[in-house]
Amino acid sequence: MREVAITGIGSTLFGRHPEQDIQGLAIEAAQSALDRAGLDRREIGALYLGNFIAGPLTGQEVLAGIVGDKIGLSNVPCTKVEGACASGGIAFRHAVMAVQSGLCDAAIAVGVEKMTQASRKDATNALLCARDNREDGESGLTFPGLFGRAWKAYEARYGITREEVAAVSIKNKANGLKNPLAQLGANLTLDVIKQSPMIADPVQLYDCCPTSDGAAAVVVTTRDRARNAPDLAIDVLASVQTRGAPHLAGHPDLTSFDATVSAAQRAYAMAGVSAGDLDFVELHDCFSIAEIVDAEDLGVLPRGQGGKWTLEGRTAVGGTIPINPSGGLLAKGHPVGATGVAQIYEAVLQLRGQHANQVRNAGLGLTHNLGGVGVACTVNILRRPDAR
Amino acid sequence: MREVAITGIGSTLFGRHPEQDIQGLAIEAAQSALDRAGLDRREIGALYLGNFIAGPLTGQEVLAGIVGDKIGLSNVPCTKVEGACASGGIAFRHAVMAVQSGLCDAAIAVGVEKMTQASRKDATNALLCARDNREDGESGLTFPGLFGRAWKAYEARYGITREEVAAVSIKNKANGLKNPLAQLGANLTLDVIKQSPMIADPVQLYDCCPTSDGAAAVVVTTRDRARNAPDLAIDVLASVQTRGAPHLAGHPDLTSFDATVSAAQRAYAMAGVSAGDLDFVELHDCFSIAEIVDAEDLGVLPRGQGGKWTLEGRTAVGGTIPINPSGGLLAKGHPVGATGVAQIYEAVLQLRGQHANQVRNAGLGLTHNLGGVGVACTVNILRRPDAR
Repeated sequence: MREVAITGIGSTLFGRHPEQDIQGLAIEAAQSALDRAGLDRREIGALYLGNFIAGPLTGQEVLAGIVGDKIGLSNVPCTKVEGACASGGIAFRHAVMAVQSGLCDAAIAVGVEKMTQASRKDATNALLCARDNREDGESGLTFPGLFGRAWKAYEARYGITREEVAAVSIKNKANGLKNPLAQLGANLTLDVIKQSPMIADPVQLYDCCPTSDGAAAVVVTTRDRARNAPDLAIDVLASVQTRGAPHLAGHPDLTSFDATVSAAQRAYAMAGVSAGDLDFVELHDCFSIAEIVDAEDLGVLPRGQGGKWTLEGRTAVGGTIPINPSGGLLAKGHPVGATGVAQIYEAVLQLRGQHANQVRNAGLGLTHNLGGVGVACTVNILRRPDAR
Repeated sequence: MREVAITGIGSTLFGRHPEQDIQGLAIEAAQSALDRAGLDRREIGALYLGNFIAGPLTGQEVLAGIVGDKIGLSNVPCTKVEGACASGGIAFRHAVMAVQSGLCDAAIAVGVEKMTQASRKDATNALLCARDNREDGESGLTFPGLFGRAWKAYEARYGITREEVAAVSIKNKANGLKNPLAQLGANLTLDVIKQSPMIADPVQLYDCCPTSDGAAAVVVTTRDRARNAPDLAIDVLASVQTRGAPHLAGHPDLTSFDATVSAAQRAYAMAGVSAGDLDFVELHDCFSIAEIVDAEDLGVLPRGQGGKWTLEGRTAVGGTIPINPSGGLLAKGHPVGATGVAQIYEAVLQLRGQHANQVRNAGLGLTHNLGGVGVACTVNILRRPDAR
């Protein structure tokens, strides 16, 4: 397998984009990434587009081919991939695999979703395409409900306070204020969070990521070819995709998602690093409690200690292990199919030392993207080339 | 790149399946393929599922993970791929690539769609996700309309009679009568076709494939590993995916789809064969005129002669080059995401000499799957191992 690096990156603002159709968002991000890739577009041999629910929400599929056409990729295989909220991460992994395997010398991964035009009912129904309707439809499962159950399970097993869970939202919303791409950065307080509407007990409004429009894109190539790129190329040490149970009954213990645990273990082994070596993590905080569960599954926080560490500021920028310096899904936003690629975008800026909320001397970073009821997961480990 | 062969294959009946949800169809086909693969399921390292419009039509995504879970693939990457009507072909190509590249030693491709429960309006709207709404939405394009334009363009350039186009439907519907999996085999006559309702001038009802439910699956592995399979393993000589323009304006000449032409050229080069070496073809006859355009694009019929050859019976079983001995999309049915995998299923039966509508001494076959306005295409060339 050949060694791979990321050259060009691109992203739209995350938020409401009434002025843009979904094609336009994806094309804007892809074009920006291509413009900074240091490659001729004729060198791009594959396009992977991560998207979850463009069909029900926009009536538009074949987005991979549409983007490939508009950015001028001549007769190159263009494929949409889907794995619920992990669709973007799956797109990135397939672009990496295409180069690793020698199928082509460069590839582009794009992620996109457009959701804010939909009614609340339509958006909710579309998001429920991520559950296994046969197994969990009759349970009435929604995703705030699922993470409400996870929170209760975590509380029962390890004990966690409202203040500790709220500390995730407070940190990520504050990080989001520093990220020019973020949709909903804010200065939150525990009182504001506690007074926000109840969504699915104990999950309240500020424990939830928003509904978002947005797109992100990254170009990958061989490390040799990446040397001439205009911006510092970032090495991909590992890119792993795993599967977990698609339904609740497959997760007897909601304090952990096995797809995350196994993806992380494989990624660390592949990269030859351990969780303690990481300088920062961008992970899938679709709900505040999810950040704690995910961080423990990734081995970056000790089991049962995630709330305490967060409240103590140890996951803030400047802390022991900064988590979601971008603002994460909670503050940056969660245009579902875009998220996994957007995490790579944020991590690359950190590793180049160019992030608006920079982690000092960031040399090694991890991104984590989780879909559905933990049915699909991707974990990537990225390194600045001079960081060993 | 390693050499790849197909071992197990599975398929549901194509047609109406009110008794089954979409998960059930996909699981049935996947389980059948796995049961005949001659492999332990722990050897399967990747699952690719081709599906186009399960989101809008069934409210169910993450089908790749759901199928992987139910057939017992332990923590293996499971990915849905989409490229409109070529989704199944794209799934097969990715399973092949996973084994070719050494990523894993065996992989499974599944294709599925469930459409007959939808109202005509909902089905039509969902199928229109395959057009580029930004470019072609205002044109009022529908797919019968597109192929009506192709027919008119072909007629203007080469001349073709109603009888010649009808000969495609008559042949494929007759082939379908012999295929136990087919939805709508029939003994048709020119008169019946000419008296059928006009859909989009000159396309009439019997020029159109039906709306279908169904699923198919195939297992691929290395040629060495395939030797112990219970059924004859079939060699994959080439598996190619290309992109064409996603909108009408990108196709100034509708008598040909460039994605098919380039996919075929690359596939022949990769396989070291030419169109004249083929013993049969399974191609994307979503409409009767499409078979003629596709066959000429693939180089298996001379340009402008497709209608004449068909009317003369030269594309029937026993003719010069049998096309769609399965009945094709017109008679076997077109559960969209399943079709590309189902074509492989049919071709494997032919190459094993086990098809209910057998082409004598079939040693080399080609499958062709086309999506949207020619935006995505896959071409595969398969060979019986003892046929050189």
